[in-house]
Amino acid sequence: MAEPIFRLASRADVPTILRLLADDDIARSREAAADPQQIDPAYWAAFEAIDADPRNELIVAELAGQIVGTCQLTYTPSLSRRGTERMTIEAVRVRADQRGQGLGRRMMAWSLDRARDRGCRLAQLTTDKRRSDAHRFYAGLGFQATHEGFKISL
Amino acid sequence: MAEPIFRLASRADVPTILRLLADDDIARSREAAADPQQIDPAYWAAFEAIDADPRNELIVAELAGQIVGTCQLTYTPSLSRRGTERMTIEAVRVRADQRGQGLGRRMMAWSLDRARDRGCRLAQLTTDKRRSDAHRFYAGLGFQATHEGFKISL
Repeated sequence: MAEPIFRLASRADVPTILRLLADDDIARSREAAADPQQIDPAYWAAFEAIDADPRNELIVAELAGQIVGTCQLTYTPSLSRRGTERMTIEAVRVRADQRGQGLGRRMMAWSLDRARDRGCRLAQLTTDKRRSDAHRFYAGLGFQATHEGFKISL
Repeated sequence: MAEPIFRLASRADVPTILRLLADDDIARSREAAADPQQIDPAYWAAFEAIDADPRNELIVAELAGQIVGTCQLTYTPSLSRRGTERMTIEAVRVRADQRGQGLGRRMMAWSLDRARDRGCRLAQLTTDKRRSDAHRFYAGLGFQATHEGFKISL
């Protein structure tokens, strides 16, 4: 495959990212339409919040000028683990026609390198128990499924 | 039990919080001594980072003037779930002699109310698969173990 570029998302990328987030069997029902004319102002506000926060990064993977992947990185300062930040990875998506070609693996490797450069000693993520492909993917990257991931809707 | 007070931690609480974090079979080996004279400057820096960050809150539970519990709340803006923040709960501890008396339950209920007040639609946490008591505790609060929690040391 051509060499993907990984970079921080810009405001112009938001509609494409929303389409990527919605293109998912489990998440689809949660998300709204991603037509740029119809995007809920809450999404723009969320983008601005992420963009202005030095501990949140919205990442895109670009291939031949197209956005084909995304994830969000959050760096959390903590009194655990000798005061180092931990990186939490959320909202990982690769465009359907690009899956199985190593793009997700490169995006995760790039993200983990970014965490190391920042001094993080731990990276973490949760993935739905129904996503068995994802479990193999993360195990293959060296992640260990040591924890139960609990969620509650508010 | 007397009525606990929940509040943001101050700098003076850091040594006690470090003792609480270390008083745990699984975490003990990860943490340094909590003698105030010997606290690694990295911990003070981490406290200052949390304290200055509007999306991170270090919480203490106080009972009769003593700190008997702690947790950290992180609010993450997101393009998922219609642009709402999610709350992540980390580093939950109740002092050994206060366990089993409902303090943890009150601290979590207070934290979830705080998330609701802020407009969060989801709260999440991970807990080590070996902590079966914790699994029952969170399930009893209405959390569901829908996700695998993956971690990787960097």
